[in-house]
Amino acid sequence: MKKSAFEVGRSSARLPMPAYISGSGCIAGSKESEGPLARQIDHLSTDDKFGMDSWEAAESFLQKEAVRILLEKSGTDKREIRYLFAGDLLGQSIASSFGLLDYEIPLFGLYGACSTCGESLSLGAMTIATGLASKVVCVTSSHFASAEKEFRFPLEYGAQRPKSSTWTVTGSGAFLVTAERSVNVLAAITEVTTGRIIDMGIKDNSNMGCAMAPAAADTIRQHLEDFGRDPQEYDWIITGDLGQVGSKALIDLLAGKGIDISANHMDCGTTIFDIEKQQVGSGGSGCGCAAVTLAAHILPRIKSGEWKRVLFLPTGALLSKTSFNEGLAVPGIAHAIVLEHV
Amino acid sequence: MKKSAFEVGRSSARLPMPAYISGSGCIAGSKESEGPLARQIDHLSTDDKFGMDSWEAAESFLQKEAVRILLEKSGTDKREIRYLFAGDLLGQSIASSFGLLDYEIPLFGLYGACSTCGESLSLGAMTIATGLASKVVCVTSSHFASAEKEFRFPLEYGAQRPKSSTWTVTGSGAFLVTAERSVNVLAAITEVTTGRIIDMGIKDNSNMGCAMAPAAADTIRQHLEDFGRDPQEYDWIITGDLGQVGSKALIDLLAGKGIDISANHMDCGTTIFDIEKQQVGSGGSGCGCAAVTLAAHILPRIKSGEWKRVLFLPTGALLSKTSFNEGLAVPGIAHAIVLEHV
Repeated sequence: MKKSAFEVGRSSARLPMPAYISGSGCIAGSKESEGPLARQIDHLSTDDKFGMDSWEAAESFLQKEAVRILLEKSGTDKREIRYLFAGDLLGQSIASSFGLLDYEIPLFGLYGACSTCGESLSLGAMTIATGLASKVVCVTSSHFASAEKEFRFPLEYGAQRPKSSTWTVTGSGAFLVTAERSVNVLAAITEVTTGRIIDMGIKDNSNMGCAMAPAAADTIRQHLEDFGRDPQEYDWIITGDLGQVGSKALIDLLAGKGIDISANHMDCGTTIFDIEKQQVGSGGSGCGCAAVTLAAHILPRIKSGEWKRVLFLPTGALLSKTSFNEGLAVPGIAHAIVLEHV
Repeated sequence: MKKSAFEVGRSSARLPMPAYISGSGCIAGSKESEGPLARQIDHLSTDDKFGMDSWEAAESFLQKEAVRILLEKSGTDKREIRYLFAGDLLGQSIASSFGLLDYEIPLFGLYGACSTCGESLSLGAMTIATGLASKVVCVTSSHFASAEKEFRFPLEYGAQRPKSSTWTVTGSGAFLVTAERSVNVLAAITEVTTGRIIDMGIKDNSNMGCAMAPAAADTIRQHLEDFGRDPQEYDWIITGDLGQVGSKALIDLLAGKGIDISANHMDCGTTIFDIEKQQVGSGGSGCGCAAVTLAAHILPRIKSGEWKRVLFLPTGALLSKTSFNEGLAVPGIAHAIVLEHV
């Protein structure tokens, strides 16, 4: 079979040109305000409704605000943005639809559960690196209360949460991806490895970490195989929201394939919260978890040169309340991008 | 602002190379079996559950089967497919997640409501035309019963349907998009105009046609402006699923801007069903409506040269039962591609 010039191995692409992350904007809620990344988050609120009258409207506000902060910080007019690549966890992605309406920017709506941050940056970078656009914005969000209502029980029900459960981050991160390398460039996206759906039969909707770990393992293994690399060639291999339980499963699964990432694996879900002090179960989760951690914690370190090369792979659990109630398992998916210091 | 080489006007891209639609596969259910396109649909079933035990599983089967038919008809091995671009109408896109699981192909999950067929072909064509992949598959689906349950009432409830309502097509269409021009090529995708979210305040979830018409009008107007063309330069301007009510609204909206598409506008929703005989309200709708009509009716005519150039724009209504129950309006979005005879 004839491959195109940029296809690498089974699932990866080497972008013809780097796509530069030239700006970011992030916002988060009360729980995140008490966490270790608080000081690096652009905007924090102790009101998790952000002045809105529903949890869904609050999440829409998060996306709107993350993009507003991004445009303001980077001195970009919204009319310069060619495309929005956006998504969230809610049914029919309503946080994005209602949050991004006012920007009047052509929109590609995405759904990859909590992996959507990686999916949006993959497609955004592919569009930029091939010259189809000069500036795009990738934005994703999640909200603890809207997610609990969407996937499990409304908060008012007072359901107990097992230790394996993760705490959906109330937050949104937006990223400006550009063809031009500006003076304020944060990182370059140079390679993309796209995940496939992996189902290991996990049926517990309070253990998303274990549902997603096989997909993360598959994408990491495939990425390393496609490019013929060792895990040690990355400063960090960063998953989106496996939490403590899922991270252990990931390391075990890869060890079983002879791949050792124990020394340089990091998970956004165990970074954004203080697991011991904050009673968040296994860690943080949601599209907002990877997005806010990328904006607040990861990109500044790549920009400074402290980290030279990072494999960043948000992880998603592909369930709905309907599929769960119908007794189906929870397949996972994980989309990876390579972030490099420039 | 510096534009990239392929950006045209505000919202369009001229692809650096044509992306060829080299194969299609489609499947539909009982209502479609009685409609005017029945003989051109690859696989029909009078069992709308397709042997499955839930409507959602039936819809997953539709996607799986559409891709299987496509691969078989085009003599393509699934391992040749670089990416799947897929989506559906259900919460968290579970028809795609569970339907496409077994193919083990890297997946970009999309959500654009009933516009997802256009979104998937836009992104698929962009990926192919820039050399990032040599073969991708774009697939979307909808199912009457799973959609009624998801957005309005389960069928068992026996709710009456107003005349303005549309009948969600039970069907799926899959398309093979390639960089190479095969002997069996059906059409070339040469240009893409990406829709933005348009909200005119329509709050009636039984009148999706009027909710989507403003978005269709916006995308058509923008497309013509971007390329400096008249509607008459297309054999047909084909919307996805506006139905009779929405089509009239579209023609009126554009007439108000001095654009007359009354002579060459066609809607998949009024093509796939016989509106008078089949009691489908205003017409067909759903991601499956545009996808099946494209596969069964539009592409054969472009292939034969009967039609030389078509503007194809699936239309989506961005609502969920949550946003509807919270009293929000139904914004629309429409993603256009230009299909040309080769």
